Amino acid sequence: MSEHPQPPTQGPPPARERVRSRVLVNTGEGKGKSSAAFGVMIRAVAAGWRVAVVQFLKSGRWKTGEEEIGRRLGVDWWALGDGFTWDSKDMDETEAIAREAWRAAAEIVRAGEHRLVILDEITYPMTWGWIDTREVVETIRDRPPHVSVICTGRDAPAELRGIADTVTEMVNEKHAFDLGIGAMRGIEY
Amino acid sequence: MSEHPQPPTQGPPPARERVRSRVLVNTGEGKGKSSAAFGVMIRAVAAGWRVAVVQFLKSGRWKTGEEEIGRRLGVDWWALGDGFTWDSKDMDETEAIAREAWRAAAEIVRAGEHRLVILDEITYPMTWGWIDTREVVETIRDRPPHVSVICTGRDAPAELRGIADTVTEMVNEKHAFDLGIGAMRGIEY
Repeated sequence: MSEHPQPPTQGPPPARERVRSRVLVNTGEGKGKSSAAFGVMIRAVAAGWRVAVVQFLKSGRWKTGEEEIGRRLGVDWWALGDGFTWDSKDMDETEAIAREAWRAAAEIVRAGEHRLVILDEITYPMTWGWIDTREVVETIRDRPPHVSVICTGRDAPAELRGIADTVTEMVNEKHAFDLGIGAMRGIEY
Repeated sequence: MSEHPQPPTQGPPPARERVRSRVLVNTGEGKGKSSAAFGVMIRAVAAGWRVAVVQFLKSGRWKTGEEEIGRRLGVDWWALGDGFTWDSKDMDETEAIAREAWRAAAEIVRAGEHRLVILDEITYPMTWGWIDTREVVETIRDRPPHVSVICTGRDAPAELRGIADTVTEMVNEKHAFDLGIGAMRGIEY
């Protein structure tokens, strides 16, 4: 008898349902919410899908590695945020920028020209009351049936979790930042 | 007074430590462990790093989207597994294949030619006792100082979590598979 568990010799039951699109929510305090969305992004690109990324906090003032590679792969990329809120000189302006980002994102979802739309860090303006959670949820729920959507950010509202088929809570067991280790190019951006 | 929490107006404390490399563990039952590793992969590529991916369960018999894009981006990719264990005709052979994958992966980590090495689904052969957890942990701990490593898979052993600076437990709040929805090209592979 081995002390180790045995590998599974039976696979999962066959899928009962085929769907045309999916809604994923990556939430929680841990690392991996946006990273996982960008991992799915490359699968979508490989599948020949047109992909859009709308970023609600990141601004276009500096380019991340994921944006550089996304653009190289033909992803339509909009970094529409105003940057870190603690760098904001005018929070009303920062809020207005987030509202504008949502108007653009809603238009992209409704247009149906992209088979995957990533709404990166969209939960934050929802949490802060800058954009209307009900409107976001209805826009995603009523999307064209071929459009998949991934939402990322901490504290995803219950209504958003409710319309998703896949919700992952990324729990922070340990994070380099908490150990005093700074964000590293090549890993965090 | 708004009913909503206010956005943070103070940033995190400045990093106290600069490190040359990082060890990340993506574990838990939820979706996102491998996806997040591949999201970091594209950041590493953008940073100009040489990147290696070793997959411990996936075989080379079918190509995933992440492999297609990874190779297109110049990532060195080895899908060294034997496929799903429930498709195995000979579990001893499947185990031998996993041991061989570990020998190759250890050599890649030690060689130091890649600044990021992704050990995808490495926790499974550790859990099943096919490869020695202590040896994996020591190889990662004693790696060349510029080499970052990401390990993915459920049930990451405590010793592996111990040497990581970042451990995320991907908790499965809801998963399409549990709803009877099958894996979808463009999302899961």
